[in-house]
Amino acid sequence: MPSALILIADGTEEMEFTITYDTLVRAGVSCTSAYVAAADAASQNKTSPPCATGSRGINILPDQQFSPQAAAAANYDLLVIPGGAKGAETIATNSPVQHLVREYLKENKYVGMICAGSMAAKTAGLPKQPLTSHPSVKAQLEGDFEYSEEPVVVSGKLVTSRGPGTAFPFALTLVELLCGKEKRGEVAGPMVFPPGTFA
Amino acid sequence: MPSALILIADGTEEMEFTITYDTLVRAGVSCTSAYVAAADAASQNKTSPPCATGSRGINILPDQQFSPQAAAAANYDLLVIPGGAKGAETIATNSPVQHLVREYLKENKYVGMICAGSMAAKTAGLPKQPLTSHPSVKAQLEGDFEYSEEPVVVSGKLVTSRGPGTAFPFALTLVELLCGKEKRGEVAGPMVFPPGTFA
Repeated sequence: MPSALILIADGTEEMEFTITYDTLVRAGVSCTSAYVAAADAASQNKTSPPCATGSRGINILPDQQFSPQAAAAANYDLLVIPGGAKGAETIATNSPVQHLVREYLKENKYVGMICAGSMAAKTAGLPKQPLTSHPSVKAQLEGDFEYSEEPVVVSGKLVTSRGPGTAFPFALTLVELLCGKEKRGEVAGPMVFPPGTFA
Repeated sequence: MPSALILIADGTEEMEFTITYDTLVRAGVSCTSAYVAAADAASQNKTSPPCATGSRGINILPDQQFSPQAAAAANYDLLVIPGGAKGAETIATNSPVQHLVREYLKENKYVGMICAGSMAAKTAGLPKQPLTSHPSVKAQLEGDFEYSEEPVVVSGKLVTSRGPGTAFPFALTLVELLCGKEKRGEVAGPMVFPPGTFA
Protein backbone atom coordinates (compact mmCIF):
# COMPACT_ATOMS: atom_id res chain seq x y z
CA MET A 1 0.00 0.00 0.00
CA PRO A 2 1.50 3.39 -0.95
CA SER A 3 2.00 5.85 1.89
CA ALA A 4 1.98 9.63 2.20
CA LEU A 5 3.19 12.13 4.77
CA ILE A 6 1.14 15.34 4.72
CA LEU A 7 2.55 18.29 6.63
CA ILE A 8 0.33 20.76 8.51
CA ALA A 9 0.99 23.90 10.56
CA ASP A 10 -0.96 26.74 12.09
CA GLY A 11 -2.28 28.72 9.11
CA THR A 12 -2.40 25.76 6.69
CA GLU A 13 -5.21 26.07 4.12
CA GLU A 14 -7.57 23.48 5.57
CA MET A 15 -9.33 22.65 2.28
CA GLU A 16 -6.02 21.87 0.55
CA PHE A 17 -4.95 19.69 3.47
CA THR A 18 -8.28 17.89 3.80
CA ILE A 19 -8.96 17.32 0.10
CA THR A 20 -5.49 15.83 -0.42
CA TYR A 21 -5.56 13.59 2.67
CA ASP A 22 -9.14 12.38 2.18
CA THR A 23 -8.78 11.70 -1.57
CA LEU A 24 -5.56 9.73 -1.00
CA VAL A 25 -7.26 7.67 1.75
CA ARG A 26 -10.11 6.92 -0.67
CA ALA A 27 -7.47 5.50 -3.05
CA GLY A 28 -6.10 3.22 -0.33
CA VAL A 29 -3.00 5.31 0.37
CA SER A 30 -1.91 5.18 4.02
CA CYS A 31 -1.85 8.84 5.11
CA THR A 32 -0.08 10.38 8.10
CA SER A 33 -0.31 14.07 8.99
CA ALA A 34 2.53 15.70 10.92
CA TYR A 35 2.42 19.06 12.72
CA VAL A 36 5.28 21.44 11.98
CA ALA A 37 5.66 23.98 14.79
CA ALA A 38 6.35 27.62 13.94
CA ALA A 39 9.55 29.17 15.28
CA ASP A 40 7.61 31.34 17.76
CA ALA A 41 7.06 30.33 21.38
CA ALA A 42 3.25 30.11 21.22
CA SER A 43 3.45 27.34 18.65
CA GLN A 44 6.32 25.48 20.38
CA ASN A 45 4.41 25.44 23.68
CA LYS A 46 1.32 23.75 22.31
CA THR A 47 0.46 20.34 23.71
CA SER A 48 1.65 17.31 21.78
CA PRO A 49 0.21 16.65 19.26
CA PRO A 50 -1.49 20.04 19.17
CA CYS A 51 -4.42 21.03 17.03
CA ALA A 52 -3.34 22.99 13.98
CA THR A 53 -5.56 26.04 13.50
CA GLY A 54 -6.17 26.38 9.78
CA SER A 55 -6.17 29.59 7.75
CA ARG A 56 -9.96 29.94 8.15
CA GLY A 57 -10.17 28.79 11.76
CA ILE A 58 -10.88 25.07 11.51
CA ASN A 59 -8.92 23.13 14.16
CA ILE A 60 -7.44 19.86 12.94
CA LEU A 61 -5.70 17.33 15.19
CA PRO A 62 -2.66 15.99 13.30
CA ASP A 63 -1.69 12.32 13.54
CA GLN A 64 1.73 13.17 14.97
CA GLN A 65 4.35 15.84 15.64
CA PHE A 66 6.77 16.37 12.78
CA SER A 67 10.08 14.59 13.35
CA PRO A 68 12.76 14.56 10.63
CA GLN A 69 13.64 10.94 11.49
CA ALA A 70 10.05 9.64 11.24
CA ALA A 71 9.49 11.72 8.08
CA ALA A 72 12.46 10.20 6.21
CA ALA A 73 12.03 9.30 2.55
CA ALA A 74 12.57 5.62 3.44
CA ASN A 75 9.21 5.66 5.29
CA TYR A 76 6.85 7.22 2.69
CA ASP A 77 6.22 7.33 -1.05
CA LEU A 78 4.95 10.92 -1.07
CA LEU A 79 5.55 14.12 0.89
CA VAL A 80 2.85 16.82 0.64
CA ILE A 81 3.18 20.52 1.51
CA PRO A 82 -0.16 22.35 1.51
CA GLY A 83 -0.65 26.10 1.19
CA GLY A 84 -2.17 28.82 3.32
CA ALA A 85 0.22 31.78 3.57
CA LYS A 86 1.22 31.45 7.23
CA GLY A 87 1.28 27.65 7.30
CA ALA A 88 3.30 27.43 4.09
CA GLU A 89 5.80 29.96 5.47
CA THR A 90 6.26 27.88 8.63
CA ILE A 91 6.77 24.70 6.63
CA ALA A 92 8.90 26.15 3.81
CA THR A 93 11.28 27.94 6.17
CA ASN A 94 11.81 24.81 8.30
CA SER A 95 15.33 23.61 7.59
CA PRO A 96 14.67 19.86 8.22
CA VAL A 97 11.68 20.10 5.82
CA GLN A 98 13.93 21.68 3.17
CA HIS A 99 16.35 18.79 3.60
CA LEU A 100 13.50 16.27 3.31
CA VAL A 101 12.24 17.79 0.05
CA ARG A 102 15.69 17.27 -1.48
CA GLU A 103 15.99 13.77 0.05
CA TYR A 104 12.58 12.60 -1.25
CA LEU A 105 13.38 13.73 -4.80
CA LYS A 106 16.89 12.23 -4.64
CA GLU A 107 15.37 8.91 -3.49
CA ASN A 108 12.91 9.07 -6.40
CA LYS A 109 9.89 9.61 -4.11
CA TYR A 110 7.08 12.05 -4.96
CA VAL A 111 6.81 15.56 -3.49
CA GLY A 112 3.53 17.48 -3.85
CA MET A 113 3.25 21.22 -3.20
CA ILE A 114 0.09 23.29 -3.61
CA CYS A 115 -0.68 27.02 -3.42
CA ALA A 116 1.91 28.91 -1.31
CA GLY A 117 3.35 25.47 -0.43
CA SER A 118 5.28 25.73 -3.72
CA MET A 119 7.55 28.24 -1.95
CA ALA A 120 9.25 25.15 -0.47
CA ALA A 121 10.68 24.37 -3.92
CA LYS A 122 12.56 27.65 -3.71
CA THR A 123 13.61 27.43 -0.05
CA ALA A 124 14.83 23.85 -0.65
CA GLY A 125 16.97 25.15 -3.52
CA LEU A 126 15.49 22.86 -6.19
CA PRO A 127 16.87 23.28 -9.71
CA LYS A 128 14.98 25.29 -12.33
CA GLN A 129 12.06 23.22 -13.67
CA PRO A 130 8.34 23.55 -14.51
CA LEU A 131 6.25 24.60 -11.49
CA THR A 132 3.05 26.39 -10.53
CA SER A 133 1.74 28.01 -7.33
CA HIS A 134 -0.89 30.35 -6.00
CA PRO A 135 -0.80 33.61 -8.01
CA SER A 136 0.06 35.50 -4.79
CA VAL A 137 3.59 34.00 -4.73
CA LYS A 138 4.17 33.87 -8.49
CA ALA A 139 6.51 36.89 -8.40
CA GLN A 140 8.74 35.12 -5.86
CA LEU A 141 9.00 31.96 -7.98
CA GLU A 142 8.95 32.90 -11.66
CA GLY A 143 12.64 33.87 -11.73
CA ASP A 144 13.82 30.54 -10.32
CA PHE A 145 11.43 28.17 -12.12
CA GLU A 146 9.74 27.62 -15.49
CA TYR A 147 6.53 29.12 -14.16
CA SER A 148 3.27 27.67 -15.48
CA GLU A 149 -0.38 28.56 -14.90
CA GLU A 150 -1.69 25.03 -15.51
CA PRO A 151 -3.86 23.67 -12.62
CA VAL A 152 -1.36 20.86 -11.95
CA VAL A 153 2.26 20.64 -13.11
CA VAL A 154 4.18 17.35 -13.01
CA SER A 155 7.96 17.75 -13.31
CA GLY A 156 9.59 14.38 -12.76
CA LYS A 157 8.61 13.53 -9.18
CA LEU A 158 7.68 17.11 -8.24
CA VAL A 159 3.94 17.82 -8.50
CA THR A 160 2.74 21.41 -7.97
CA SER A 161 -0.68 23.06 -8.04
CA ARG A 162 -2.40 26.42 -7.53
CA GLY A 163 -5.00 26.71 -4.75
CA PRO A 164 -8.16 25.27 -3.17
CA GLY A 165 -9.84 25.36 -6.58
CA THR A 166 -7.21 22.99 -8.01
CA ALA A 167 -6.92 20.76 -4.94
CA PHE A 168 -9.13 18.01 -6.40
CA PRO A 169 -7.15 17.68 -9.66
CA PHE A 170 -3.94 17.89 -7.58
CA ALA A 171 -5.05 15.06 -5.28
CA LEU A 172 -6.39 12.95 -8.16
CA THR A 173 -3.11 13.40 -10.05
CA LEU A 174 -1.25 12.12 -6.98
CA VAL A 175 -3.64 9.14 -6.87
CA GLU A 176 -2.95 8.41 -10.53
CA LEU A 177 0.84 8.62 -10.05
CA LEU A 178 0.83 6.39 -6.94
CA CYS A 179 -1.99 3.97 -7.79
CA GLY A 180 -2.65 4.18 -11.53
CA LYS A 181 -5.22 5.71 -13.86
CA GLU A 182 -7.90 3.11 -13.11
CA LYS A 183 -7.79 3.89 -9.38
CA ARG A 184 -8.15 7.60 -10.17
CA GLY A 185 -11.42 6.84 -11.94
CA GLU A 186 -12.63 4.57 -9.13
CA VAL A 187 -12.00 7.31 -6.58
CA ALA A 188 -13.44 10.19 -8.63
CA GLY A 189 -16.72 8.42 -9.49
CA PRO A 190 -18.37 8.36 -6.03
CA MET A 191 -17.20 11.93 -5.36
CA VAL A 192 -19.87 13.04 -7.92
CA PHE A 193 -18.07 15.84 -9.77
CA PRO A 194 -20.35 17.91 -11.99
CA PRO A 195 -20.20 16.71 -15.61
CA GLY A 196 -17.10 18.03 -17.36
CA THR A 197 -15.04 18.77 -14.26
CA PHE A 198 -11.93 17.00 -12.99
CA ALA A 199 -12.85 13.33 -13.26
CA MET B 1 -22.54 39.75 9.18
CA PRO B 2 -24.45 36.58 8.20
CA SER B 3 -23.88 33.54 10.41
CA ALA B 4 -23.90 29.79 9.88
CA LEU B 5 -24.12 26.74 12.12
CA ILE B 6 -22.40 23.71 10.59
CA LEU B 7 -23.07 20.35 12.21
CA ILE B 8 -20.41 17.66 12.47
CA ALA B 9 -20.33 14.13 13.90
CA ASP B 10 -18.07 11.10 13.89
CA GLY B 11 -18.12 9.89 10.29
CA THR B 12 -18.84 13.29 8.72
CA GLU B 13 -17.28 13.65 5.25
CA GLU B 14 -14.43 15.99 6.15
CA MET B 15 -14.09 17.57 2.69
CA GLU B 16 -17.77 18.55 2.62
CA PHE B 17 -17.51 20.01 6.13
CA THR B 18 -14.24 21.84 5.49
CA ILE B 19 -15.05 23.22 2.03
CA THR B 20 -18.38 24.63 3.27
CA TYR B 21 -16.99 26.16 6.48
CA ASP B 22 -13.84 27.60 4.87
CA THR B 23 -15.62 29.05 1.82
CA LEU B 24 -18.27 30.71 4.01
CA VAL B 25 -15.53 32.21 6.25
CA ARG B 26 -13.84 33.58 3.12
CA ALA B 27 -17.13 35.36 2.33
CA GLY B 28 -17.23 36.95 5.79
CA VAL B 29 -19.87 34.61 7.19
CA SER B 30 -19.43 33.91 10.91
CA CYS B 31 -19.21 30.11 11.14
CA THR B 32 -19.72 27.88 14.17
CA SER B 33 -19.31 24.11 14.09
CA ALA B 34 -21.24 21.97 16.58
CA TYR B 35 -20.58 18.31 17.44
CA VAL B 36 -23.60 16.02 17.38
CA ALA B 37 -22.96 12.92 19.51
CA ALA B 38 -24.10 9.55 18.24
CA ALA B 39 -26.58 7.61 20.35
CA ASP B 40 -23.93 5.03 21.33
CA ALA B 41 -21.99 5.27 24.57
CA ALA B 42 -18.53 5.69 22.98
CA SER B 43 -19.60 8.92 21.37
CA GLN B 44 -21.46 10.25 24.42
CA ASN B 45 -18.43 9.66 26.64
CA LYS B 46 -16.03 11.72 24.54
CA THR B 47 -14.53 14.79 26.21
CA SER B 48 -16.24 18.11 25.58
CA PRO B 49 -15.84 19.35 22.91
CA PRO B 50 -14.48 16.13 21.44
CA CYS B 51 -12.67 15.77 18.15
CA ALA B 52 -14.96 14.47 15.44
CA THR B 53 -13.26 11.69 13.49
CA GLY B 54 -14.18 12.19 9.85
CA SER B 55 -15.14 9.49 7.35
CA ARG B 56 -11.51 9.24 6.14
CA GLY B 57 -9.84 9.57 9.53
CA ILE B 58 -9.12 13.30 9.81
CA ASN B 59 -9.78 14.53 13.37
CA ILE B 60 -11.48 17.93 13.56
CA LEU B 61 -12.06 19.84 16.80
CA PRO B 62 -15.54 21.41 16.59
CA ASP B 63 -16.18 24.90 17.98
CA GLN B 64 -18.79 23.61 20.43
CA GLN B 65 -21.04 20.75 21.47
CA PHE B 66 -24.43 20.74 19.77
CA SER B 67 -27.15 22.20 21.96
CA PRO B 68 -30.69 22.70 20.63
CA GLN B 69 -31.00 26.01 22.50
CA ALA B 70 -27.75 27.50 21.13
CA ALA B 71 -28.57 26.16 17.65
CA ALA B 72 -31.97 27.91 17.49
CA ALA B 73 -32.98 29.61 14.24
CA ALA B 74 -32.96 32.98 16.03
CA ASN B 75 -29.15 32.70 16.32
CA TYR B 76 -28.09 31.82 12.75
CA ASP B 77 -28.99 32.54 9.13
CA LEU B 78 -28.00 29.10 7.85
CA LEU B 79 -27.91 25.53 9.15
CA VAL B 80 -25.64 23.06 7.28
CA ILE B 81 -25.77 19.26 7.40
CA PRO B 82 -22.78 17.62 5.69
CA GLY B 83 -22.62 14.05 4.42
CA GLY B 84 -20.50 11.00 5.14
CA ALA B 85 -22.75 7.96 5.67
CA LYS B 86 -22.20 7.45 9.41
CA GLY B 87 -22.07 11.16 10.28
CA ALA B 88 -25.17 11.95 8.27
CA GLU B 89 -27.04 9.09 9.96
CA THR B 90 -26.12 10.43 13.41
CA ILE B 91 -27.23 13.95 12.51
CA ALA B 92 -30.36 13.03 10.51
CA THR B 93 -31.71 10.68 13.18
CA ASN B 94 -31.20 13.24 15.97
CA SER B 95 -34.65 14.42 16.99
CA PRO B 96 -33.63 17.97 18.08
CA VAL B 97 -31.85 18.37 14.70
CA GLN B 98 -35.03 17.29 12.89
CA HIS B 99 -36.95 19.92 14.85
CA LEU B 100 -34.35 22.57 14.00
CA VAL B 101 -34.54 21.84 10.27
CA ARG B 102 -38.29 22.51 10.37
CA GLU B 103 -37.79 25.59 12.61
CA TYR B 104 -35.13 27.16 10.34
CA LEU B 105 -37.32 26.80 7.26
CA LYS B 106 -40.42 28.07 9.11
CA GLU B 107 -38.42 31.12 10.25
CA ASN B 108 -37.31 31.71 6.63
CA LYS B 109 -33.67 30.81 7.38
CA TYR B 110 -31.53 28.73 4.98
CA VAL B 111 -30.86 25.01 5.43
CA GLY B 112 -28.07 23.36 3.42
CA MET B 113 -27.73 19.57 3.07
CA ILE B 114 -25.10 17.78 1.01
CA CYS B 115 -24.47 14.13 0.09
CA ALA B 116 -26.09 11.74 2.60
CA GLY B 117 -26.91 14.85 4.67
CA SER B 118 -29.99 15.20 2.45
CA MET B 119 -31.50 12.28 4.39
CA ALA B 120 -32.33 14.90 7.04
CA ALA B 121 -34.97 16.33 4.69
CA LYS B 122 -36.77 13.00 4.93
CA THR B 123 -36.27 12.40 8.66
CA ALA B 124 -37.46 15.96 9.38
CA GLY B 125 -40.61 15.21 7.36
CA LEU B 126 -40.21 18.09 4.90
CA PRO B 127 -42.89 18.38 2.20
CA LYS B 128 -42.29 17.06 -1.33
CA GLN B 129 -40.04 19.49 -3.22
CA PRO B 130 -36.99 19.51 -5.52
CA LEU B 131 -33.92 17.92 -3.86
CA THR B 132 -30.68 16.12 -4.65
CA SER B 133 -28.28 13.92 -2.67
CA HIS B 134 -25.45 11.45 -3.01
CA PRO B 135 -26.48 8.70 -5.46
CA SER B 136 -26.08 6.12 -2.64
CA VAL B 137 -29.21 7.43 -0.89
CA LYS B 138 -31.24 8.32 -3.99
CA ALA B 139 -33.49 5.27 -3.63
CA GLN B 140 -34.45 6.35 -0.10
CA LEU B 141 -35.38 9.87 -1.22
CA GLU B 142 -36.85 9.74 -4.72
CA GLY B 143 -40.31 8.64 -3.54
CA ASP B 144 -40.68 11.54 -1.12
CA PHE B 145 -39.09 14.36 -3.14
CA GLU B 146 -38.85 15.70 -6.70
CA TYR B 147 -35.43 14.08 -7.10
CA SER B 148 -32.90 15.92 -9.28
CA GLU B 149 -29.35 15.08 -10.39
CA GLU B 150 -28.24 18.71 -10.68
CA PRO B 151 -25.05 19.52 -8.67
CA VAL B 152 -26.95 22.02 -6.48
CA VAL B 153 -30.72 22.31 -6.05
CA VAL B 154 -32.29 25.43 -4.50
CA SER B 155 -35.89 24.93 -3.35
CA GLY B 156 -37.03 28.03 -1.49
CA LYS B 157 -34.67 28.13 1.50
CA LEU B 158 -33.60 24.48 1.21
CA VAL B 159 -30.31 24.01 -0.66
CA THR B 160 -29.16 20.44 -1.42
CA SER B 161 -26.12 18.99 -3.19
CA ARG B 162 -24.49 15.66 -4.12
CA GLY B 163 -21.02 14.93 -2.73
CA PRO B 164 -17.43 16.13 -2.26
CA GLY B 165 -17.24 16.87 -5.99
CA THR B 166 -20.12 19.35 -5.74
CA ALA B 167 -19.06 20.87 -2.40
CA PHE B 168 -17.49 23.96 -3.99
CA PRO B 169 -20.58 24.90 -6.05
CA PHE B 170 -22.73 24.09 -2.96
CA ALA B 171 -20.66 26.41 -0.75
CA LEU B 172 -20.47 29.15 -3.40
CA THR B 173 -24.26 28.97 -3.89
CA LEU B 174 -24.70 29.47 -0.13
CA VAL B 175 -22.32 32.46 -0.34
CA GLU B 176 -24.38 33.92 -3.19
CA LEU B 177 -27.67 33.44 -1.31
CA LEU B 178 -26.33 34.96 1.94
CA CYS B 179 -23.97 37.62 0.59
CA GLY B 180 -24.86 38.27 -3.06
CA LYS B 181 -23.50 37.38 -6.48
CA GLU B 182 -20.63 39.88 -6.31
CA LYS B 183 -19.29 38.31 -3.11
CA ARG B 184 -19.43 34.89 -4.75
CA GLY B 185 -17.09 36.15 -7.47
CA GLU B 186 -14.77 37.82 -4.94
CA VAL B 187 -14.47 34.56 -2.99
CA ALA B 188 -14.07 32.27 -6.01
CA GLY B 189 -11.32 34.32 -7.69
CA PRO B 190 -8.44 33.70 -5.24
CA MET B 191 -9.41 30.02 -4.95
CA VAL B 192 -8.03 29.60 -8.52
CA PHE B 193 -10.52 27.19 -10.05
CA PRO B 194 -9.41 25.74 -13.40
CA PRO B 195 -10.91 27.67 -16.30
CA GLY B 196 -14.51 26.64 -16.95
CA THR B 197 -15.20 25.16 -13.52
CA PHE B 198 -17.50 26.47 -10.79
CA ALA B 199 -16.61 30.18 -10.63
